[in-house]
Amino acid sequence: MRADAQDNRNRILAAAEEIFGRTPGASTEDVAKQAGVGIGTVFRHFPTKVELLEAVLTVRLERLRDRATELADEPDAGAAFYGFFSQVVAEASTKLAISEALVASGSAAGETARSAGAGMREAFGKLLSRAQQSNAVRADADFPEVYALLIGASRGATAAGLDPAVRDKMLDILYDGLRPAPTG
Amino acid sequence: MRADAQDNRNRILAAAEEIFGRTPGASTEDVAKQAGVGIGTVFRHFPTKVELLEAVLTVRLERLRDRATELADEPDAGAAFYGFFSQVVAEASTKLAISEALVASGSAAGETARSAGAGMREAFGKLLSRAQQSNAVRADADFPEVYALLIGASRGATAAGLDPAVRDKMLDILYDGLRPAPTG
Repeated sequence: MRADAQDNRNRILAAAEEIFGRTPGASTEDVAKQAGVGIGTVFRHFPTKVELLEAVLTVRLERLRDRATELADEPDAGAAFYGFFSQVVAEASTKLAISEALVASGSAAGETARSAGAGMREAFGKLLSRAQQSNAVRADADFPEVYALLIGASRGATAAGLDPAVRDKMLDILYDGLRPAPTG
Repeated sequence: MRADAQDNRNRILAAAEEIFGRTPGASTEDVAKQAGVGIGTVFRHFPTKVELLEAVLTVRLERLRDRATELADEPDAGAAFYGFFSQVVAEASTKLAISEALVASGSAAGETARSAGAGMREAFGKLLSRAQQSNAVRADADFPEVYALLIGASRGATAAGLDPAVRDKMLDILYDGLRPAPTG
């Protein structure tokens, strides 16, 4: 792809992320306007709204995967795990809006988004293992239930348009459950 | 309503709860077949699919409210709170399927379902207060975050079609977070 085409593509994706994250039912025209490109340019890059939504979701999942991968080098494995968990939950409402817009378009996430999601889960699993090795997360918590808690907290925070103070108190309770029981 | 009409209504509601809980996209005809009544009888009681879905959701919320109200008399306030929490999460997938069928019909829950939901939340709040008074739930957990955890756990359990063993481990972690910190 030529540099200016790549530049347009990135601007369209950034605009789409912002607009669909706020208003799942927004139109492709709203995206074009926000990106400062013609509607024809949007359709050249993303022939359908489903393709555009899928690309936005993929970018978001890849960004989370990269963030988790980066955090795996943090010296404080507990802070890395809990920090990533909180970030996913805080960003959940816009991500969920995009997933729901996809479902409303009669389409589930396709292969690219699914593979980005798998990469994110794998990186999150590494953060969990490291946090357990450094005794910041209880050893008897396996990936499936911890991942279910991540999804659940994200949805719980979103469902009620939860205010940030309530979200933080919810996460405090959850994190107390995830920490190893005090010994002695 | 005459006794036989009431009887038909109840059979339609029971059939609809089972069918929509399993298959949100099921048709009113499937419900009539399962209830053993004619499609005309279904439409006489519930002129639209939205009205039928709404009635099913209301019955479900009222049942949970009644269960919570009953449990408020249990001598073991902790067992009552955690038992009710687990029951809501275990039943969540069918309830969510019904809510989602409503949303897919282009309709949110109407006044009757909303008021049944408010009754359920109020009864759950009482279970929470009693459990806190008997030191089975930490005193610093307020209703909004505990309710967010209930919604979140329900959605987390449903999202992945979570198997019951994983669901129970997820709830164990959550309940450890909800219990008061051990003293001494």
